[in-house]
Amino acid sequence: MITLNTKLVGLLGYPLTFTFSPKMHNSTFKEMGLDYYYIPFEIVKEDLPDVLTGIRHMNFAGFNVTKPNKVRVVRYLDEVDELAAQIGAVNTVKITKDKKLIGYNTDGEGYVASLEDQLGITPEGKKFVLAGAGGAGRAIAFTLAKYGAERIEIYDTNLDCREKVAAEINANVCNCAVSRVLSDENIKKSIDEGDVLINATGIGMMPHTDRTPFNKDLLNPNIIVSDVTYNPLKTRLLKEAEEKGCQIHNGIGMMIHQGRKAFEIWTGIQPPYEFMEKVVKNIINNL
Amino acid sequence: MITLNTKLVGLLGYPLTFTFSPKMHNSTFKEMGLDYYYIPFEIVKEDLPDVLTGIRHMNFAGFNVTKPNKVRVVRYLDEVDELAAQIGAVNTVKITKDKKLIGYNTDGEGYVASLEDQLGITPEGKKFVLAGAGGAGRAIAFTLAKYGAERIEIYDTNLDCREKVAAEINANVCNCAVSRVLSDENIKKSIDEGDVLINATGIGMMPHTDRTPFNKDLLNPNIIVSDVTYNPLKTRLLKEAEEKGCQIHNGIGMMIHQGRKAFEIWTGIQPPYEFMEKVVKNIINNL
Repeated sequence: MITLNTKLVGLLGYPLTFTFSPKMHNSTFKEMGLDYYYIPFEIVKEDLPDVLTGIRHMNFAGFNVTKPNKVRVVRYLDEVDELAAQIGAVNTVKITKDKKLIGYNTDGEGYVASLEDQLGITPEGKKFVLAGAGGAGRAIAFTLAKYGAERIEIYDTNLDCREKVAAEINANVCNCAVSRVLSDENIKKSIDEGDVLINATGIGMMPHTDRTPFNKDLLNPNIIVSDVTYNPLKTRLLKEAEEKGCQIHNGIGMMIHQGRKAFEIWTGIQPPYEFMEKVVKNIINNL
Repeated sequence: MITLNTKLVGLLGYPLTFTFSPKMHNSTFKEMGLDYYYIPFEIVKEDLPDVLTGIRHMNFAGFNVTKPNKVRVVRYLDEVDELAAQIGAVNTVKITKDKKLIGYNTDGEGYVASLEDQLGITPEGKKFVLAGAGGAGRAIAFTLAKYGAERIEIYDTNLDCREKVAAEINANVCNCAVSRVLSDENIKKSIDEGDVLINATGIGMMPHTDRTPFNKDLLNPNIIVSDVTYNPLKTRLLKEAEEKGCQIHNGIGMMIHQGRKAFEIWTGIQPPYEFMEKVVKNIINNL
């Protein structure tokens, strides 16, 4: 039962039909005996400012923001964390006791935590090959740079997009990013020299599971292949990388860790990874 | 679990520590298998406009409004039902599919329904003696006039308050209201000539259960004595009236019927009185 003491947490995006977050967070609040409740609200971008005006008075501890509101929300916040400001997008907002809205981005942080947690590696001194400089790719690139990546080679079919990410990282975080022209030759060279290849393009996600961003021949067993997709858990790219002998890494860890970090921002408490993973895997198995 | 399909219903007031509405409505939604959820929000009057700006986009079917917001809310609504406009206060708002806010007042309607339901009487042609021309008294007086009361004699220690109610009823509903100077002599005469005496002053409510608005000697067994208080269920006034041989009527029916009418405004479905009464009596017994 939601009472006057229950702290609410929202999710503001549209559409939200496929989100795992309400079940993941509500199960965890319950498991930990915390009087919080997570509620999804389908909010189109035109209505976002009105909702932000109201929600700060309605006993919410904060909210998640997802498509199409992650970039737009920034202008309405009272404070934005440094990394989120560099990324230019916010996925988590905390509402303080004096009703201030403070924005964070836990997507890239979730990715980095997952790399460390699942593969035992940190970005420091590593060479990354990043495919996809949209929302997720941007957050990941800035966060890898923040944590000391030696080099991030960025590919995207959208020239402006990849040039902008690289230039902003080099100007504001550290001089480690390169925007690369998309060609098999360039990709092969990047992969041959790199430590981790990251697919943040969304290519290979449900329902288009037969697609892959790279020809299998371009892969080699020396590189770790990481895909931010978690549905399916093993994309065509990861299957082919495994066949090639590469170590692989899927998007479930990023998804859980970004949620864990958001959970901690709202409640001050770090929730157990294993429990959240069990909930999320259970959701995926029942899709 | 609250999902994207769940219609939310709010309660906007401050303080809300003692409200029965969340339990009453949520138990009834559940009993009837309706995917609605009622959430109380403590909203001070300064924050009301911001909350109304946001809440219309947040998948709410509507909300209740209580102290201190019942009068203030009217100016922010898109439409106001005629009776609510006459009363000048709204306790129930419906949010339409195109996000319009429409205001109603179910307090007086709830009172009239309770009179009919519990005593089998309608206001038509009856003479009422009303003590208390504040929020509840005002709503009851206008509604009695709407349903054809022959005469409503209004007492209140606040002269402006009682004069205003009487004048507005006579100008806008029908010429049946009289503002009376508070004296034992006047009250005795009103009671002797009246059909129903209504205590809407709040005198006798918890925790001041030893108080009563009228000296027992003024009562006579020909009048029905009604008290809008439901905590306690039998006020000192009702006990003394019973001792005098009067038929008595407490506030629980008004409370349930106003909630029933609000429930119907949000859902289009009339909930069962008996179930709601059971829930409310259970709450009262556990106070």
